[in-house]
Amino acid sequence: MALIVQKFGGTSVGSTERIKNVAKRVARWRAQGHQLVVVPSAMSGETNRLISLAKEISPQPDPRELDVVASTGEQVTIGLLSMALMEQGVKAKSYTGAQVKVLTDSAFTTARIERIDENRMRADLEAGFVVVVAGFQGVDAAGNITTLGRGGSDTSAVALAAALKADECQIYTAVDGVYTTDPRIVPEARRLDTITFEEMLEMASLGSKVLQIRSVEFAGKYKVKLRVLSSFEDKEGPGTLITYEEDPKMEKAVISGIAFNHDEAKITVMGVPDRPGVAYQILGPIGEANIDVDMIIQNASVDNMTDFSFTVNRSEYAKAMDVLNKQVKSHIKAADIRGDAKVCKVSLVGVGMRTHAGVAGKMFRTLAEEGINIQMISTSEIKVAVVIDEKYMELAVRALHKAFGLDQPQ
Amino acid sequence: MALIVQKFGGTSVGSTERIKNVAKRVARWRAQGHQLVVVPSAMSGETNRLISLAKEISPQPDPRELDVVASTGEQVTIGLLSMALMEQGVKAKSYTGAQVKVLTDSAFTTARIERIDENRMRADLEAGFVVVVAGFQGVDAAGNITTLGRGGSDTSAVALAAALKADECQIYTAVDGVYTTDPRIVPEARRLDTITFEEMLEMASLGSKVLQIRSVEFAGKYKVKLRVLSSFEDKEGPGTLITYEEDPKMEKAVISGIAFNHDEAKITVMGVPDRPGVAYQILGPIGEANIDVDMIIQNASVDNMTDFSFTVNRSEYAKAMDVLNKQVKSHIKAADIRGDAKVCKVSLVGVGMRTHAGVAGKMFRTLAEEGINIQMISTSEIKVAVVIDEKYMELAVRALHKAFGLDQPQ
Repeated sequence: MALIVQKFGGTSVGSTERIKNVAKRVARWRAQGHQLVVVPSAMSGETNRLISLAKEISPQPDPRELDVVASTGEQVTIGLLSMALMEQGVKAKSYTGAQVKVLTDSAFTTARIERIDENRMRADLEAGFVVVVAGFQGVDAAGNITTLGRGGSDTSAVALAAALKADECQIYTAVDGVYTTDPRIVPEARRLDTITFEEMLEMASLGSKVLQIRSVEFAGKYKVKLRVLSSFEDKEGPGTLITYEEDPKMEKAVISGIAFNHDEAKITVMGVPDRPGVAYQILGPIGEANIDVDMIIQNASVDNMTDFSFTVNRSEYAKAMDVLNKQVKSHIKAADIRGDAKVCKVSLVGVGMRTHAGVAGKMFRTLAEEGINIQMISTSEIKVAVVIDEKYMELAVRALHKAFGLDQPQ
Repeated sequence: MALIVQKFGGTSVGSTERIKNVAKRVARWRAQGHQLVVVPSAMSGETNRLISLAKEISPQPDPRELDVVASTGEQVTIGLLSMALMEQGVKAKSYTGAQVKVLTDSAFTTARIERIDENRMRADLEAGFVVVVAGFQGVDAAGNITTLGRGGSDTSAVALAAALKADECQIYTAVDGVYTTDPRIVPEARRLDTITFEEMLEMASLGSKVLQIRSVEFAGKYKVKLRVLSSFEDKEGPGTLITYEEDPKMEKAVISGIAFNHDEAKITVMGVPDRPGVAYQILGPIGEANIDVDMIIQNASVDNMTDFSFTVNRSEYAKAMDVLNKQVKSHIKAADIRGDAKVCKVSLVGVGMRTHAGVAGKMFRTLAEEGINIQMISTSEIKVAVVIDEKYMELAVRALHKAFGLDQPQ
């Protein structure tokens, strides 16, 4: 008998019919004798509906009150799912974040979980109840309702699993696991049985949106055994298990997957004097404008002058260019500011490359053979990422998928 | 500077536009220096939508979970209204029932308020905030979310006013006060400036659905000064004030208003042996079937046999007949059970009739002149109610309204 936390996303609970199906699935696990804590998201579309109402009232709604409104989506689902479980003959009991309680800081709309009181849940589990907990929400020390931000239900589930020392945290999604890359682009993409925690972080942050990245970080911190599964299959599939130790079997696979992101824009500050503090002078104003920077590259200098490049989310490209032209350019005496919003990032991810030389070289050769020019390169121990013209994205992903044998069984 | 509790019904907050209008109204009161606690209902239709979702999941939803779901309607409104107030430049802060906290018993879906903690509200009021509290909901001693049942927001507002010893509790509705009768039936109906608490109880319970009866009882118990006003008028009207002392000026008005209810059904148990306990033998099984009985009449007996009549809500007529025929008839050896679901009740209400003889006589004569047969009569110190054929209802109300001079200025 295991203690399992199961998280169901908005699409999985998107209608009362689907909530009934989730209840049947949970009931099957319960019938096997497992103790279950279930964390549903809001019904799909509901959080957007609530935020739209708030925006009709106020273009910039007060964050505390926005959380009061937005947290109701999950509160509705926990009640409905508990009823549906009882209809299946399963004892069930719901809790809001405040009831559990899931204690967070007071950063409304982006709160962070500080502590979870597991006593009530533990008592209910011992008494044979399935415990249904609202994801995405918590309560601060003063009793104010908080939310964890978009995708926070994943984080809630992982945090509950950590607090309860659960045997496994299952994240049910619309896909049946983590794939070598997006099957919509590469039909030969394979489901991975396992992926390491570090690889998952790279895959998630680079645009394979299976799991919210914060939840993966949280899982890593508390060594929560995390599994991604499909909520739409009738039969229970194995999904993808996220591991913390490198599997000896995995050594043969150099690369686990290919991530990509076309919401990228590239900015280059040309002819920058290469002196201490110049990176800060460029990125400081960008950070103050709340613009997230992804890749950062500075070449070796020639004649004490260098080019400084970085990427930002495409939606923040115009804002970033504006900041640079108005606040930075003349200040640091840069020759020019150039930008390109039509780029994408493609990344090879795999712990295997730690012990295998030549991964980057093989990647660059593969792209060259397809006539794809590489504009930026960034590497880490388990990743090689390149920025290329966005029109080549699908071609690059398919070529690399084949070149690294990801279409072959592991 | 007064402390005022203002309650706005579902229609008054039925859209984001209307919520903005409520915020403007509250801001006007705030600008006059008053301290304000505002209690909104759920947006009109929202509670029904939530209950429908629950019914799709389960024909008889678990009451604890139904309250978790249903209470979200008001939670959305308090957040939206607080945002709207801030847009008006007014400091505002929302609280759910659990946050206040509004302590209730554990009778889910029909909970009763036991105690209200006024400390947080008091501190916020002192700090210049408008406090926005979710109506209809509370929390039990174990921390479970509860609701007060339909119309419970009125009760919430009155209970908050009592706890805070507010100077006035204002109930904003779609009408601008309590009328002598329904203006849709009698266009000459007049708004009453004042009505006594007892009259209001009779008017409310008899079908003039301006205020929820429980809230009026609650107001009476704690002597809360209650005022009914319109939320749709641009200018603030005086509405109707519900008083606890009889106004000496009112002595001239014998009758304050005419209430009516066409959701009535009449049942007569014929030929009942007139012996002790027979009323209980008839009404005991009716009560056990959770059927509410309104009027009860037993005539003087002839030859130790009597007829026993009572009225029930029309929607429970079939069920009541079934109980009587199956469980009561042969047991008490009644001659027959007869029923009529096409009746209505018309009531004259007024504290003035205590000191004025002849009210009942004048009522019966007025009805006789219109050729209306009276089927049942029931009287109290401030009320004369008759049951008549429902087809005469409008005629009876109009004739009585004129006969008692209710169309004339008070």
